[in-house]
Amino acid sequence: MGPIQEALDALPLVDHHCHGAVTADLSAGDFASLLTEGGAWPGVSPFDSPVGVAVRRHCAPLLDLPRHAPAADYLARRSALGWREVNRRFLSAARTEVFCVDTGYAPHSLTSPDELAHAAGATAYEVVRLEALAEAVVAQGVEPDEYARVVGAAAGEAVRKPGVVAVKSVAAYRTGFDLNPARPTDAEVTEAARRWLARGGRLADPVLVRHLLWTAVDLGLPLQLHTGFGDDDIRLHHADPALLTDWLHLTRGTVPVLLLHCWPYQRQAAYLAAVFEQVYLDVGLALHHTGPARSRAVLEEALEITPFRKLLHSSDAYGVAEFHHLGALCFRQGLAALLQDRVDADELSLPDALRIATWTGRDNARRLYGLPTPDSARD
Amino acid sequence: MGPIQEALDALPLVDHHCHGAVTADLSAGDFASLLTEGGAWPGVSPFDSPVGVAVRRHCAPLLDLPRHAPAADYLARRSALGWREVNRRFLSAARTEVFCVDTGYAPHSLTSPDELAHAAGATAYEVVRLEALAEAVVAQGVEPDEYARVVGAAAGEAVRKPGVVAVKSVAAYRTGFDLNPARPTDAEVTEAARRWLARGGRLADPVLVRHLLWTAVDLGLPLQLHTGFGDDDIRLHHADPALLTDWLHLTRGTVPVLLLHCWPYQRQAAYLAAVFEQVYLDVGLALHHTGPARSRAVLEEALEITPFRKLLHSSDAYGVAEFHHLGALCFRQGLAALLQDRVDADELSLPDALRIATWTGRDNARRLYGLPTPDSARD
Amino acid sequence: MGPIQEALDALPLVDHHCHGAVTADLSAGDFASLLTEGGAWPGVSPFDSPVGVAVRRHCAPLLDLPRHAPAADYLARRSALGWREVNRRFLSAARTEVFCVDTGYAPHSLTSPDELAHAAGATAYEVVRLEALAEAVVAQGVEPDEYARVVGAAAGEAVRKPGVVAVKSVAAYRTGFDLNPARPTDAEVTEAARRWLARGGRLADPVLVRHLLWTAVDLGLPLQLHTGFGDDDIRLHHADPALLTDWLHLTRGTVPVLLLHCWPYQRQAAYLAAVFEQVYLDVGLALHHTGPARSRAVLEEALEITPFRKLLHSSDAYGVAEFHHLGALCFRQGLAALLQDRVDADELSLPDALRIATWTGRDNARRLYGLPTPDSARD
Repeated sequence: MGPIQEALDALPLVDHHCHGAVTADLSAGDFASLLTEGGAWPGVSPFDSPVGVAVRRHCAPLLDLPRHAPAADYLARRSALGWREVNRRFLSAARTEVFCVDTGYAPHSLTSPDELAHAAGATAYEVVRLEALAEAVVAQGVEPDEYARVVGAAAGEAVRKPGVVAVKSVAAYRTGFDLNPARPTDAEVTEAARRWLARGGRLADPVLVRHLLWTAVDLGLPLQLHTGFGDDDIRLHHADPALLTDWLHLTRGTVPVLLLHCWPYQRQAAYLAAVFEQVYLDVGLALHHTGPARSRAVLEEALEITPFRKLLHSSDAYGVAEFHHLGALCFRQGLAALLQDRVDADELSLPDALRIATWTGRDNARRLYGLPTPDSARD
Repeated sequence: MGPIQEALDALPLVDHHCHGAVTADLSAGDFASLLTEGGAWPGVSPFDSPVGVAVRRHCAPLLDLPRHAPAADYLARRSALGWREVNRRFLSAARTEVFCVDTGYAPHSLTSPDELAHAAGATAYEVVRLEALAEAVVAQGVEPDEYARVVGAAAGEAVRKPGVVAVKSVAAYRTGFDLNPARPTDAEVTEAARRWLARGGRLADPVLVRHLLWTAVDLGLPLQLHTGFGDDDIRLHHADPALLTDWLHLTRGTVPVLLLHCWPYQRQAAYLAAVFEQVYLDVGLALHHTGPARSRAVLEEALEITPFRKLLHSSDAYGVAEFHHLGALCFRQGLAALLQDRVDADELSLPDALRIATWTGRDNARRLYGLPTPDSARD
Repeated sequence: MGPIQEALDALPLVDHHCHGAVTADLSAGDFASLLTEGGAWPGVSPFDSPVGVAVRRHCAPLLDLPRHAPAADYLARRSALGWREVNRRFLSAARTEVFCVDTGYAPHSLTSPDELAHAAGATAYEVVRLEALAEAVVAQGVEPDEYARVVGAAAGEAVRKPGVVAVKSVAAYRTGFDLNPARPTDAEVTEAARRWLARGGRLADPVLVRHLLWTAVDLGLPLQLHTGFGDDDIRLHHADPALLTDWLHLTRGTVPVLLLHCWPYQRQAAYLAAVFEQVYLDVGLALHHTGPARSRAVLEEALEITPFRKLLHSSDAYGVAEFHHLGALCFRQGLAALLQDRVDADELSLPDALRIATWTGRDNARRLYGLPTPDSARD
């Protein structure tokens, strides 16, 4: 093992965007539906996929099974250990000092940030999902002409809660990024709120989606944006982050914007990070779904022109704690391999490589979110 | 040679999408125009390209020439052997047990599926191209308000012909995929047919192209869709398969959809295959045009998140039997190399790698098209 | 070192698209703002980027510093040597026999083509930027109904100037390529000129941008088109060269079209070069910004299906002569590595590899621009 892999293995990571793990024992079907972005399909094992292979290879040993254990053995052992022990093993194996947890999506019963932190022996912070917040406001009843004010107040209150370090938007899912970039007027918001309240359903009005992006600007906290890869609810080509360019021009000098996931548009995201001071990116979610076999390749593209202070680590793990672990492992292995090869080819000095590893794995996130140095990681 | 390459070399493939080979001796100019998607250009040898280099390297030895034989020698030897012998050599070298032949595009005189099968010592099935079928209906005369019924009846008859296993659409060429995804009404189809009959030319009306996609849904057979790379008749960005997402939502639970070629949008296709149960993909055509030097890289991206039951092999060979061979060779070499490296890195077990090779090379297609096990391949 | 690297090291290149180097000593801040496409950001060193690492690794030794010298040492040494000596060292290190210089963008005081040639011991030709020419016409005063005639006359005069070998358009920056491909009528141009003259500012009217593309067709010289990567003034997705397809159909058989940069759309550009006789491409700018660590990967994609007579070398260096050197170095190293590996795998013969190196590094450009063989490079 090379010195960079050793350094990354020893470095406690900041996972700047993830979700909780399910707090219940999962049936085979439930586990299958959480293992892929496509859900469970009759007659096809979700383990017959890059992520399934990666779980059998890298997660089975943490359940005391051999590498590449059969899927049935894996599920049986997972059940036998029980969810608390499974979560504890994977979350602590991630060697992550900080998790920033998006608490706005919870179709399952999930660990709270505190529970996640406790199981991992780490610290947790919270990320407020703006669409969920606006939907909660509407669920409680609001008049159209009060919508902007009430949402703004609720958002302001939400981010003042201790431990909140960022807000997040899933505009990519609701309308995509081919939006009018301008801040909507009060009259436009009122009219759009009237339409939404009349129609019901989830927030998907283009004016109101834009309004939340501008609400984020007013809040002043870093804004996480889902881009690229997700489940079938997305239109991938509308989640190309390059579509955000006009909006990024208008919001220059305001809040940091963190492009999450990005795959397969990691080069487009890298371009934005290279030319806009406020833009950062990660390739979370993509790493564990491609597995270690391709994580390096995805990271190579993400880093092709990205300034080294602009890449962060996230797992975007949801539901199964395997992914909190696997995301960290893919990041460490992929980044170490690419940096070590550059050092070996004398394209990069070893001290520079070690700085890049520490920045991207931990310090970029610490600086961006203003995180205190946890006691466990002071060094 | 590693065990995976050996296994793939021994595995008879299913080439689930190809065309016939020309049944005539080709002049140098004719051969040139078939060798690339750009046709023949004065003063530039079509051999000075990745596909040309691959033909000289991997096809010359089958014509009893040395590797990397000069283009002139290659053409002379090809002429001396005659088209029947040339076709026989390359088609049998492909070690393909089944060819699914798109018979709807034939500007040259081509082998029929039976002739192709005979020359290869294989079995052939037929794929019905829907645009060609609709154009034949119109050529025979039809009233606008009868168009939908007559096309539906003709399609129903065509797919009941023995040996037909799939239908195909070249919507990508005619309108691209940025279409209204909804099934057109009868009145819309009649009105569009009226416009087309008045104007003439090939089928390129957006309503009628959509109508054929929905006709495919009614037929119940797997639907092959050209996506990505092709000749200059395509608008590449309109052939991005991600544009099909809304239509895939509407047609969920109906017919399997096979995304052909995909390059350079293989990651977008992989996303669709990962989240839609009915979606499959191949990287045919791209493999022999990039040659073995890049086939592995293209396959790596295609497999980045694709479930292993969702990738198929096709050559998309047209005209020159070199491509039936080269497509198979690029698939076998590219896939073997990537799987072997994963086994060597202990990212994948050898039994898993062998299963993936057999699935993608043969069994996924067998299962999807309901192909019987040919005698020659029973194992 | 392999024979292909040796051959490329010995081959004087043609850099078919670049700019001048600044003729002044640069402050640390000025240098920073020229080092990246994002400019200088407070608190972040522009050296902490792929291009910054590449400069410290490959440019420092030419300033008598050790490889990977610290940024502060690099800047101090650069200042101590003075701009004339710095330019001389890097420009001559590029071992480039011909520079084709875009003289239409000069926010700094830059070397003229002759000065650049002199410092490099090379020959320089000129590329006329059409938008700058039209803006100069308007700055001198013109009536709307005279605009087309005066711009055409000025362009005709400009390209008759000795040493002019091509024209260039930055349509990608002004409107993007999602344009009506047809030649605008005289009335349309007059009306658009009226709008522009009334509004002022830079040329960004879609009709006038199209008019310049068609003016290039009339001029008969090769047309260089910025595509893909650039600074924050671009909308990356509007600079995808695939958007040019309809226009390329209409202009078939007229002038050669050179797609510059292309990243991250190098595969889309390769598709166009493979199917349109008049289309060529390079991956200039992208190579030095990714650095040698990724230049090979970008070249691999650019060459995936590109005919070998269609790839050219450019640095697109602007401002700092480091980039004229680094662009050449990245091209030589990246291309040599990929060709050598193909030779080693017996996918390519050594004579073929050497031909491809000479074509892409020099002869494709010589042929396309009709360049005489410089004395220094006659061989």
